[in-house]
Parts: sequence; structure tokens; C-alpha cells
Amino acid sequence: MTSSYMTELQPPQKVLLGPGPSTVHPRVLAAMATPVMGHLDPAFFQVMDDVCEMLRQVYHTNNKMTVPISSTGTGAMETACANVIERGDGVLIARNGYFGIRLGDIAERCGATVHLMDTPWGKPVDPNMLRDELKKHPGLKAVGVVHAETSTGVISEVKELVDVIHEAGALAIVDAVTSLGGHDVRMDDWGIDVCYSATQKCLGAPPGLAPISLSEAAMDVVVKRESKVQSFYFNLKDLESYWNQTRAYHHTSPINMTYALRESLRMMMEEGLENRIQRHAKVAAGLRAGVEALGLKLLAEDGARLNPLTTMSVPDGIEDAKVRRTLLNEYDIEIGGGLGEFAGKAWRVGLMGESARERNVFALLSALETILSKEGYEVAFGASLSAAQRAIATFDKD
Amino acid sequence: MTSSYMTELQPPQKVLLGPGPSTVHPRVLAAMATPVMGHLDPAFFQVMDDVCEMLRQVYHTNNKMTVPISSTGTGAMETACANVIERGDGVLIARNGYFGIRLGDIAERCGATVHLMDTPWGKPVDPNMLRDELKKHPGLKAVGVVHAETSTGVISEVKELVDVIHEAGALAIVDAVTSLGGHDVRMDDWGIDVCYSATQKCLGAPPGLAPISLSEAAMDVVVKRESKVQSFYFNLKDLESYWNQTRAYHHTSPINMTYALRESLRMMMEEGLENRIQRHAKVAAGLRAGVEALGLKLLAEDGARLNPLTTMSVPDGIEDAKVRRTLLNEYDIEIGGGLGEFAGKAWRVGLMGESARERNVFALLSALETILSKEGYEVAFGASLSAAQRAIATFDKD
Repeated sequence: MTSSYMTELQPPQKVLLGPGPSTVHPRVLAAMATPVMGHLDPAFFQVMDDVCEMLRQVYHTNNKMTVPISSTGTGAMETACANVIERGDGVLIARNGYFGIRLGDIAERCGATVHLMDTPWGKPVDPNMLRDELKKHPGLKAVGVVHAETSTGVISEVKELVDVIHEAGALAIVDAVTSLGGHDVRMDDWGIDVCYSATQKCLGAPPGLAPISLSEAAMDVVVKRESKVQSFYFNLKDLESYWNQTRAYHHTSPINMTYALRESLRMMMEEGLENRIQRHAKVAAGLRAGVEALGLKLLAEDGARLNPLTTMSVPDGIEDAKVRRTLLNEYDIEIGGGLGEFAGKAWRVGLMGESARERNVFALLSALETILSKEGYEVAFGASLSAAQRAIATFDKD
Repeated sequence: MTSSYMTELQPPQKVLLGPGPSTVHPRVLAAMATPVMGHLDPAFFQVMDDVCEMLRQVYHTNNKMTVPISSTGTGAMETACANVIERGDGVLIARNGYFGIRLGDIAERCGATVHLMDTPWGKPVDPNMLRDELKKHPGLKAVGVVHAETSTGVISEVKELVDVIHEAGALAIVDAVTSLGGHDVRMDDWGIDVCYSATQKCLGAPPGLAPISLSEAAMDVVVKRESKVQSFYFNLKDLESYWNQTRAYHHTSPINMTYALRESLRMMMEEGLENRIQRHAKVAAGLRAGVEALGLKLLAEDGARLNPLTTMSVPDGIEDAKVRRTLLNEYDIEIGGGLGEFAGKAWRVGLMGESARERNVFALLSALETILSKEGYEVAFGASLSAAQRAIATFDKD
């Protein structure tokens, strides 16, 4: 009997238009495959410094504590909560999607007394509603909000939310997993205290690392906490020693993933952060126009739509999973299905990082036209493509 | 001004003879650099299944729950503790080095009432001493032991320790970070309940994943626990759904690291696990003979010496850091310094995975002879080399 592991790995080439991972550029893959060095080798310290310096630029921050966590984004979410929260601390989580729910779950596991403020899926978090809610719960330690809700495709106005959170004297924890590198994230200007992300979305590296940045005020809270952080692995005080100070061993860094992140950030610096963000905006405009021309409903409220991730309704009578399977198997295109209350009802299309290319908009729309038509959905062939073209051309003129 | 990140990554080629990461074979690096696919792509599920099947062979287990955790080894240590332990549970940690201390620290952060049993550094954990100690603490939930203490180079007799732990009715948590793939680890035969490791040592992949295996009895405890696991990221019940059952999304898997692990395990299957373990034994025998011929003291008790990692004393009058710096800068060889009470007093030499090659033994010994001689230490040139040669030749005959 031969087992499948006996054959060489030959992963299929897919166009990754799901909610992450996004396509990784060959330069990044090549950097990742360069020889391993030790995590305490001074040559690696230089790689670490390079990564931190570029991450600070992407976050628009001077925060010394700006490092990649050795996990995926969910681990960074946990890092944020575990370090800031002590048992019994009051915390409010503004939930308007799946990742807000996850943030509340994690805060609770970290021992917080969690207050929840729910906003319907598809809508951004309202600063006025948050202000009213915070008045009911004085003395909170922190408030968690999701900048870019990957489950709904909604972007919330973080600057305004942070102002409201600071009025209430709490720390602002911001999830920027799907926005960092694809939208403006201005850590210092907006006064964000803790902000985390992930490598496999707009940053263009494979999944496996998760950047986090903490303001001095937030690090002060972490350093002065009375109880031990419940997680050893995610303990930021120790991680700061390794990344910024004495280079003291904490855990063995994922060396090659750090190489990959360095190269993907270098590519972002070459392109220019503003250009990168504009590229995300342009292709998203094209996609949205095409999707609407197809007659699908965009699920994020107008004016609060993410560029890196677009959500749309699955048309009545169309089987969600079948369409996605056909896209993946016959067109080599991956898109995402709905999560939570959107399960079975939504498609999530990511145009992030290296995947945020015009050609991918047209590849997806033309495939969707064909597949939906075969499934009995009425399609005017080419309509979505020309709508996308017009939107992109208009974007270029503006 | 040009910043260092503006230049292309050109990591130096080092011979990695520290306590990990070990050298990674070009085949593994190449597999890691193949295109990213989605973490919910059925093609990736096959990669996951391949990895789990091979890990079961390396662990000598039929445990369904045998998966790589998306972290380095310390994260797997935390996974073991966070899932098994509920607040107030009694736990005993047998400490005979730095990683035993870490295990106790993590168990405490997970809410355990921790009892500590200390054994001097350099000695293995004594089953009789453990039996006596366990009698003083009836009703413990779990006992943690380190199979291969990476700080001291000591291997403990896990089978006997597990028997004693089971006599006391507790679960046996075993740290096999430095032994898996370099020594026999017989999960099922020895009755280990929870056993974790890491990819960057004897398994021959880069750092960034950490295999863990749980017996059915241990998973039963995890599934039936009353309180939530304090870590969302390391929650094994959810991870089981993703790895073994419904493929439900939990977090975005580190895709390319999983490719790398698959290829490194494939190479182990090709070589044969027994051959791999013998290779580690042979080169370690050569190194130990050479080190003793150099007049350095081996710090692990005779009969309890690890093969993948050898510890030796820094000779009087010799400056630890200077020798290691010279090795790294002039000979491109990395070895490790001492941790904890061995800091400044010990060198730790890893011959693990792809680094466990005869040529590395001779490269290191000849460099050490030269460097130590220049530092004023009396050296009979070639003596350590011929001692190593003899030991290896004897090993081959036996």
C-alpha cells in the first residue's frame, strides 16, 4: 500500500481570493526558503530590527513595542487580551461580526468581566452608541473594537471610536487583522493603545506570524500589572526583552516566517504604503461594481465597506458550497463562505496584498457569470465585467 | 540614509550546532516555498492528514489526536497544561533543568496548585524519588516530566516515570521537544498521556510548529472539563474539529510551515526512524569522546546522556561568550551557551536532525581545539579528533 505522504508535495496553484491567506509573491517565498540561522545569532537580530522598523511604518507609529507574535492572528488577539486584562477587570467588546464575538470570548477566557455591545451584522460600530453604552459601565479597563470585520466586510471608524473609548478612560484594543496594509491604520494619530494584525492578508506573507503594537501607556499597564500574564508564550514583557532589549531567550523564533515577513514588508515599502492602499481601493471598487451588476447584494452598509474584503449575498436558489467548489476545482479560484450568522448566505471575496490585482477581479466575475448562469441564475454575460471596468477607469481618473 | 531593510535578505550559511534550530535540508526549504493554498482547501486537508499520519509513526502511537500546534515548542507546552489543567487542580512537576522550571511556571499560570520535585541539574529524574513524592500528594490531576532536558543534556527514563505516575492515578505529561525523532519516544507502549515536541530539533524542519499527541484518556479529560480552556488559540477541542473532524475553521493554519514539516517527516520516513535514531547515537558518541579527550567535563550523568544534545563545562579561565562568538564569526558554527544555573558555565552542542552528521563533529572539535589553544588552554592537537573517530568506528562495529 502506498500512502499519500510518499509522494512529493505538489500544491495546486490557486488564485487566493478568500478571506486569507492571500497569494504570496515568489520573492517572499524565495526569501522564506533561505538558510535557517539561530534565533540568538546577531545576524538574526538585524532581521528582527528590520521587521520591527517596517512594521512601525505600516502602523504609522513610533511605538517601541511593535513586534510580530509567533502565531497567527487569533494568537495576537489572545496576546492583546491576556496581557492587558487581569482577572475581574471590566472590559467592553463592541461586536458587529464573528471576530468581535471571538474577541469577547477570548477576553472572558482571560478573566475579564465582559460587557457586550452588539451591532447588526453588516453595519459599523456607532461611536455615539458606544459612548452611551460606556456611560453605563464606568471604570472599564479596556474596550475592544474590530477595525475591519472579516466576517461582514465592514470597516468601522476607529479614530472616532478610540476618542470615545479614551473619554471613558479605557484602553482601546483594535483588531486590524484585515485592514493593516490595505487601509490606513494610524496607530499614533488615532491614539490606539493595542493593535494587532496578521501576515496572511494585506501584508502579503504566508500565515504564521501576527504583528502587534502597544502604546507606551498600554505597555505601562502590562508591565505594572499585579498578576502574572496567564499565558507564558504570549507574555509581552518577556517578548519585549527578546525583541527590543537584552535579546534574552524566550522561545525559538519562527526564523523563516520572519524572513518572509521581512521580504513582504520590503515589497510594501518599495510600492509605497499609500499606493498599496490605493490599489486595494481601486480593485475593490471594480469588484463591488461587478457584483452589483450581477445582481448580488453587497452585505456591508454603503460607506462602511472594506476594500480588502467584499461580502455579498448568495442569490436565492443557488447552493453556496456548490458554487465555491466549482470555482475552486474548475477555475482554481478560492473565495470564502459565510461565517456565523452569514453561514451559507454569504460569499466573502478577499482582494488582499498580492491578490489585490485587477486581473483577479475579471477572472472571478467572468467565472461567477458562467457558473451562476449554469445554475439557472439569470446573467447578462459581460455586464459585470464592463461594470467593473468602468468603475476601475473612473477610479483611475479621480 | 539607507536602512538595513532596503537590502535583500542574504542570511549567512551557519552550521547549526546549538540547541535548535538545527540545519534544514534544502528539500524541506524548497517544499516550504511552494505556493500557498487555503487552510480550508481539500488539497490542504490531504497535507494535514499526511502530516498527522507520519507524526503518529514518529510518536509510535495510534492516537487520533496527534497534530502540530501553530506555535513553537513553548506553545505546545502551554497547550498541554492549559487543556488538561483546571483551576485548583493539583499537579506535580519533576524539575531537573530549565525546561522543567518553565513547565512548572506554565502549569501555575494555568491555575494549577503546583508541587515541585527538584533533581540536581545534570541528573535524570529518579522514579523511586517520584513515587515517594507522589505519596505525599494524593489525588493529583497530572505530573509533568521532561524526557530530554535541553538545558542539561539529560535524558530521563520516561517509561518508568509514567508507570509511577499512573500508579498514583495521574496523567503523564511528557516534554519530548529535544527527543522526538532523535531518541525512541513510544507514546503508546509507555502509556504517555500527553506528549509534545517541536519541529526545529530532531524533526529537521524550521521552528514554527509544535507536534502534540494526546491519548484517548487525556482527550477525554479535555473534552469533559467543566471550565473553558483559558486559551482560545491552544484549545484542543476546537483544534480537533479542524484537524480530525469537521474541518471547522479555528485559526488560519501556517500553511507553508505545514508543507515544511510534511517534507521533513517524509525524509525521516525514507531514512527510517530507527536509522535516524542510530545516526543521532553515533555522532553523539563521537562528540562525547572528542569532548572528553579535550579535557572538558560532560555535564550530564553517565548513562543519562542525550544524543541530540551534549552539554560540557567551559574550562576554567576560558570566557564562554568569546569562544562562542569566535566559533560563530570565524568558523560559521553556532553552539549554545548555558541556561539558568548553567549560564556562563556550560556549552550546549546540538547534533539534531540534519545537523547530526559526522562532518559536523569534526568541524566543531577541530575549531574548538584551535580556539581553546589560542586562549591559553592546553590542547594536544588532533587528540579530540582521533578520539571521536575511534568512538564512531567502534559504534559502527557494534
